[in-house]
Amino acid sequence: MTLQEALETLKAMEEAQAAYGQAFSVMYVDGDTVAPKMSYKGRAKALGYLSGELYSKTVNERNIEAIQTILDAGDAVDALTRRKATVQKEDLEDMLLMPKEEYQTYQETLTEAGAVWHEAKLKSDWDAFQPYLEKLVAYKRRFAERKDASRPAYDVMLDRYEKGMNTKTLEGFFSLLRSELTPVILAVKDKPAPDDSCIHGHFPVEGQRELNRRVMAVMGLDPERTALGETEHPFTDGVNKWDVRITTHYHEDDVSQNLYSVIHEGGHALYELGVADELQFTCLSGGSAMSIHESQSRFYENLIGRSRPFMETLLPILRDVFPEQFRAVTVDQLYHAMNKAMPSLIRTEADELTYAMHVAIRFEIEKLMFSGDAKLSELPGIWNQLYHEYLGVTVPDHRRGILQDSHWSGGLFGYFPSYALGSAYGVQMLYAMERDVDVWGAVRAGDLTPVTAWLGEHIHRFGQSKTPAELLVSAEVNPFDPHVYVGYLKKKYGELYGL
Amino acid sequence: MTLQEALETLKAMEEAQAAYGQAFSVMYVDGDTVAPKMSYKGRAKALGYLSGELYSKTVNERNIEAIQTILDAGDAVDALTRRKATVQKEDLEDMLLMPKEEYQTYQETLTEAGAVWHEAKLKSDWDAFQPYLEKLVAYKRRFAERKDASRPAYDVMLDRYEKGMNTKTLEGFFSLLRSELTPVILAVKDKPAPDDSCIHGHFPVEGQRELNRRVMAVMGLDPERTALGETEHPFTDGVNKWDVRITTHYHEDDVSQNLYSVIHEGGHALYELGVADELQFTCLSGGSAMSIHESQSRFYENLIGRSRPFMETLLPILRDVFPEQFRAVTVDQLYHAMNKAMPSLIRTEADELTYAMHVAIRFEIEKLMFSGDAKLSELPGIWNQLYHEYLGVTVPDHRRGILQDSHWSGGLFGYFPSYALGSAYGVQMLYAMERDVDVWGAVRAGDLTPVTAWLGEHIHRFGQSKTPAELLVSAEVNPFDPHVYVGYLKKKYGELYGL
Repeated sequence: MTLQEALETLKAMEEAQAAYGQAFSVMYVDGDTVAPKMSYKGRAKALGYLSGELYSKTVNERNIEAIQTILDAGDAVDALTRRKATVQKEDLEDMLLMPKEEYQTYQETLTEAGAVWHEAKLKSDWDAFQPYLEKLVAYKRRFAERKDASRPAYDVMLDRYEKGMNTKTLEGFFSLLRSELTPVILAVKDKPAPDDSCIHGHFPVEGQRELNRRVMAVMGLDPERTALGETEHPFTDGVNKWDVRITTHYHEDDVSQNLYSVIHEGGHALYELGVADELQFTCLSGGSAMSIHESQSRFYENLIGRSRPFMETLLPILRDVFPEQFRAVTVDQLYHAMNKAMPSLIRTEADELTYAMHVAIRFEIEKLMFSGDAKLSELPGIWNQLYHEYLGVTVPDHRRGILQDSHWSGGLFGYFPSYALGSAYGVQMLYAMERDVDVWGAVRAGDLTPVTAWLGEHIHRFGQSKTPAELLVSAEVNPFDPHVYVGYLKKKYGELYGL
Repeated sequence: MTLQEALETLKAMEEAQAAYGQAFSVMYVDGDTVAPKMSYKGRAKALGYLSGELYSKTVNERNIEAIQTILDAGDAVDALTRRKATVQKEDLEDMLLMPKEEYQTYQETLTEAGAVWHEAKLKSDWDAFQPYLEKLVAYKRRFAERKDASRPAYDVMLDRYEKGMNTKTLEGFFSLLRSELTPVILAVKDKPAPDDSCIHGHFPVEGQRELNRRVMAVMGLDPERTALGETEHPFTDGVNKWDVRITTHYHEDDVSQNLYSVIHEGGHALYELGVADELQFTCLSGGSAMSIHESQSRFYENLIGRSRPFMETLLPILRDVFPEQFRAVTVDQLYHAMNKAMPSLIRTEADELTYAMHVAIRFEIEKLMFSGDAKLSELPGIWNQLYHEYLGVTVPDHRRGILQDSHWSGGLFGYFPSYALGSAYGVQMLYAMERDVDVWGAVRAGDLTPVTAWLGEHIHRFGQSKTPAELLVSAEVNPFDPHVYVGYLKKKYGELYGL
């Protein structure tokens, strides 16, 4: 095969992947937002079939030869093309481990598992979900064993999310967080809780939709390229940079939950919206490793969205949309209300201080899933026990316990640690950004353009054309030091609670 | 090829068509409802690519041989399989007329044309839309010429929607309607207009959504299999019988527009929901010819939804949802308000009496498009002139004129006559149904199950396993006689207006 033929083959392969990928994204988002419940029957069949088609378009001798030809061509190809070939090779090697039928069955199982999880959560019914979890874990274990039987399955999967990551590193990371943060969590518990009555009450969905429009404008989320939907569990799907979907969940009795879901998913969306044009419709479009992606979402949600300066921008909006509730509230009261630290049940609603403990619990559970040291049927009990141990809270039902997150139903095992890693990366990015940009001036002015521009320059535009490690260097998280994150939390909560 | 191989080939072909078809439906509905505006960029690429994939899966030597093998096997195959092969053969022969690249380009043009039409309508900007119409008409003319150069292009297209239909038959049909109904329209014009103030005022969207839920329940639309979205132009897309999408458009100053859109699309939806299980995921799923489909939608919208007995069911719902507006309204007032006949600008909002004139105008315009007797740039002027001539109204802008319908942007030329034909078929179905079922008792009881059951038995369950002509016999429209339709309209409006 000539290099020219190899390049054309790669192009055709990426064109197929972009087309099928877009169809899958839209069917997935649609299925989770507006499709009627029984639609999963047809969707499971269609996604199963079409994923088999994409498999055939990806995994074949011609593509394998083309990729190797490009990688062997050295300096005759540009760096971007070489990077594409590298990423494609990694994906292909993974797909080769699973025959087409197995891959298709897995895709069908995912679609069904999503629908079943949704119902199971509403009914707190672990038994309904467990058989699907069983299938998904079994698939992932088979995959990990074929990929590298010499390493624990969970390590193989962590490495797939972020090259070089493993159980041992994460155990050190979470152990540091637990030992450093637990005393702060306990100290905060002894202090009087701040008054957060302003964020509780009755906030009709229509008003919250208006709030979202205003806040999304502050974030600079282009409404012609971003759509907001409604789901049980908020998520982002970046179809391409001209089509980014985010979702939220409305609670009429608490204005902060939807608000911070939108800011979090909006952070993911800004990443997808900011990837360079030249990477669109290639394997390098979309964000990099999940920890990098979560560094962006948690950056906007917490470092910006829960900062004191942001309250100066947020309060006038809240007063406009919900005048009764916020007329008499001060910036300082709002800041304390939005940063009330309290061990709680739901990860996505947790404050910054206790958040990492939720993630640490999921890390422990996932280790057990893959080590085989516990049966799946034992996991709900262990979950509840860990919540008691780490956070001192009692889990009343599986809906607010082990069934709360959608990730496992989507086959995302080894994803959760990304949230804590990303939170930690973000703090170091913020400190770097502060050296170049008047961050807090922009936040107070209600226009986050300079903040997004810095992240765009250092992270977003690169898509997957850089490795996670290279992106951390680009974003000046170099070296990564979790003590910086711990220090940030200690300072913030020390001041908030007068510790 | 053995018969067994042929049957397996047909099965594989239908599996592919169902999977791609589902992806296209969802991408189309999503694109029209919730996707951000710029998403069309990626969607056009993806649909173009994937429609090429489906083309290859459909148009190939093996499929052609398989279909012929089945058709040649005579009684060795069952009637349903033979019907599948017949339908597949017709589709294949059409696709063979357009090479893959041309077909793909057409699909991409359709996606863009939809987005452009939407903007053009909002801005009343014919010039923006005309180049896309040009491309679509040129494609269809090329297609018609290749299919049968001996017949006028428009006849070839009408025949494709309904076997045996042609310009001459429709000219007779519309000429009858025009000569018979124009005197009634003029007579009504001389009568005092009924008071329809109750349907005008302020009806917040949230209330209208509740109204829709209630009315959809009366119609028996299963909420686990039917979803309602919001678009500029209401439509139905039956993905399969477990996933039917309908859309509506809300006008806060007029409660009837959304209401009758939902009943109309709900009629289409009941058809799709009622197709037999055994036909799902085959080429025989989904409704038959568009005139049969429109006979169902217009049946519910007008024959049921605008009947006097239906007002007895509707009024209590309206009083529940909008108590201020409907407290003092009587059933008789509501009946007259919902049946106010008045020449107007918008087809979808037209009363039953003047409706067919809107369709007749589109028929005249489409004839011109394909005969070449007028340039496309002349059509807006001709449109306005015809509205003056047929209905005596002055078109103020293209938004309320030639740009009002989405059909042409979707490549649907020759579709409009189906609305008038379907309306006419429906009246004969109603008279047949009245012999078997207590139609008006069911309507008054607020439960349309017996009505839908009759249509299900005579039409819905067959999907496309019967030809339109066979379905008309099954539904006792035999022979079809447009005088029955004219008689129904004359009687209804004669009574309403005391002519």
